[in-house]
Amino acid sequence: MSYCTATYRIYDDKANFHKKAESIAIGMTVGSWTELPEAKREKMKQHLGQVLDVQVHEPENAQAGERYGDVTIAYPDINFSKDIPALLVTVFGKISMDGKIKLMQLGVSDAFASHFPGPKFGIQGVRDLLGVPNRPLLMSIFKSVIGLNASELREQFLRQALGGVDLIKDDEILFENELTPIEKRVEVCIRAAEEASKETGKKLLYATNLTGPTSRLHEQARKAIDAGANALLFNVLSYGYDVLHELSKDPEISVPIMAHPALAGAYYPSPYHGISASVLLGQLMRLAGADLVLFPSPYGSVTMPREENMGIKEQLLTSALSVKQSMPVPSAGIHPGLVPLILQDFGTDVIVNAGGGIHGHPMGTEAGGRAFVQAIEAAQQGVSLSDYALAHPELASALQLWGGEK
Amino acid sequence: MSYCTATYRIYDDKANFHKKAESIAIGMTVGSWTELPEAKREKMKQHLGQVLDVQVHEPENAQAGERYGDVTIAYPDINFSKDIPALLVTVFGKISMDGKIKLMQLGVSDAFASHFPGPKFGIQGVRDLLGVPNRPLLMSIFKSVIGLNASELREQFLRQALGGVDLIKDDEILFENELTPIEKRVEVCIRAAEEASKETGKKLLYATNLTGPTSRLHEQARKAIDAGANALLFNVLSYGYDVLHELSKDPEISVPIMAHPALAGAYYPSPYHGISASVLLGQLMRLAGADLVLFPSPYGSVTMPREENMGIKEQLLTSALSVKQSMPVPSAGIHPGLVPLILQDFGTDVIVNAGGGIHGHPMGTEAGGRAFVQAIEAAQQGVSLSDYALAHPELASALQLWGGEK
Repeated sequence: MSYCTATYRIYDDKANFHKKAESIAIGMTVGSWTELPEAKREKMKQHLGQVLDVQVHEPENAQAGERYGDVTIAYPDINFSKDIPALLVTVFGKISMDGKIKLMQLGVSDAFASHFPGPKFGIQGVRDLLGVPNRPLLMSIFKSVIGLNASELREQFLRQALGGVDLIKDDEILFENELTPIEKRVEVCIRAAEEASKETGKKLLYATNLTGPTSRLHEQARKAIDAGANALLFNVLSYGYDVLHELSKDPEISVPIMAHPALAGAYYPSPYHGISASVLLGQLMRLAGADLVLFPSPYGSVTMPREENMGIKEQLLTSALSVKQSMPVPSAGIHPGLVPLILQDFGTDVIVNAGGGIHGHPMGTEAGGRAFVQAIEAAQQGVSLSDYALAHPELASALQLWGGEK
Repeated sequence: MSYCTATYRIYDDKANFHKKAESIAIGMTVGSWTELPEAKREKMKQHLGQVLDVQVHEPENAQAGERYGDVTIAYPDINFSKDIPALLVTVFGKISMDGKIKLMQLGVSDAFASHFPGPKFGIQGVRDLLGVPNRPLLMSIFKSVIGLNASELREQFLRQALGGVDLIKDDEILFENELTPIEKRVEVCIRAAEEASKETGKKLLYATNLTGPTSRLHEQARKAIDAGANALLFNVLSYGYDVLHELSKDPEISVPIMAHPALAGAYYPSPYHGISASVLLGQLMRLAGADLVLFPSPYGSVTMPREENMGIKEQLLTSALSVKQSMPVPSAGIHPGLVPLILQDFGTDVIVNAGGGIHGHPMGTEAGGRAFVQAIEAAQQGVSLSDYALAHPELASALQLWGGEK
């Protein structure tokens, strides 16, 4: 027998969590059990959910609202088809609406996971494309692009590229539009990338935002790739994981896919409801085939607690899933002074990703990129940023504006 | 200029909500404003978000955590493509992750709405199919179907149908499986429906669960329709609204689509995060083309506050949207004694939907259906349930078990 598992955190001042767990295991699978005649039970046994674990957290002198149970249920694979919509409906469809309950963890069986090829490139594949075997990568984000025409877009792209970044991503709110349709955007930006490469000697990936009707996304992606696109950005949660999965396994979509976390805040921040960040932005993104995954960093303005970031990282990298690893991209509020902290938290396999921290540099966008390149060099060489800044004016200027290591 | 609007509830003990509103209006559209040169502003004006309203709720002697602002922002239509993923990413993509913020209301422009044909049948179309012009409809839900073979499924279908229900729906956790693949399920159930019709004289819709890979849903739906399916059930939130929209506008999918709320609890219950039930299960379901929409009733075990139910109803029926109306289906914990209350809350255009309240009837499933038919007759005739029960033993038995009007 093969099972997928789900762990829920259920807040309830009075519930018998063992009973509650039994009722989920039965209610979300065979529907009823004790009433079944013996012969029927024999036949239904293979479909019956199992209670794997119940941990009751009852602090002494608990205030109302503080008591919770962590409940793990195993769902027989035989009950649902091997796709993420079926898995989510099975483990969290109806019960998501039943009181204070949050989906904290998923365990997918090997049989279930075997239907998911996972990221086509993964961390190593992205490194190979860039020819950067072992340093943290650097990404820059387009800023204020709505309303720009192709030549303005090109200008901004070039300034970012000349700063020495490895990747540049579209703003996730840039949709198909008359000024810069995807094939035009790709054409001007990839040409600018080639131009910059001659100066920087660096390869560059440009993640262009894939948007529009679900049924036309594959066609749009191919159009972008035909125009030279070497990466795609995708707002996964507004379309569904299965759409990412189908894009990712399409052999014609021969470029890395970067998952954007837009809308994720509708699910993960409440302790009482929704889906944990590690499942939402870690495990399911990787399973569905995202090569790179953005999520709110714990460092800046749009923040997520550090332990939740580490939970995402763990899911993107763990060998418990046999598919390729996805590259973590902690985002928002990143400036060069944070680089040592990012590397301390994430190691070398991370993308240092900045928008305002590049465009807002006092010496301009290009210098903004250089300041990050220098910060990464310093961290790699084990030199403190302030020491390295003595001979690197862009870094010095960034540290002066945004501060150094904390 | 044409705009879509979004109203957020933002909890913050100290924030200047007017400033916060300005920062959303600018940050989620043009990115920056005050720094722009005059000529650039002129060009960018058409893309700039507008603050429409800011209401600060600051109770006297407010405790920490009680202060909030309701902020309405208008987003220029020109900024995003005319699809629900683009709308959601625009109005709630990044800021869903920025503190305690919940999306409470959406206003869609006529220009945006014009890209949505909406429900193909709507309330009137469903009534026409059933030949029931003006009474509340009655639906029964399959129970404990995992592991059943086609003949067991048929038997349960027949018992429900003979009770006189108007619609029968699959369990939402019944996925494609070897025992009862969709075309087989449809074939045996529709044949059972015809058989029952000869006895009851009633037409019947069977909403079969549409599942599997996103790219194959249209093909699955056509397969079901070829086999005789006259309605479909769909777990919208596990696939995305755009998938529903594309199914609904497909001319070959010539049957009503019933939206199931599975996973909705991941979004709506928290006061601080997520998306309100009226947007999630009302407005967006209707815009995307659901003919019938299930949601947790305020009456039973899986409950939603009554005012949120009324918010959903309002969105499913309001003439502010020019598409057809969607039929409300308040679900979970429904028994015959609740019928007068349901009709009081929802009027005649409602589906009385029961699972346990039909199958759990002391005299069996068939009698369970009859008890509801009788309760609806009584309510329609303005007779109290207890009076009507005097001559209707099935209703009497139901009232005895579950109680009467509250």
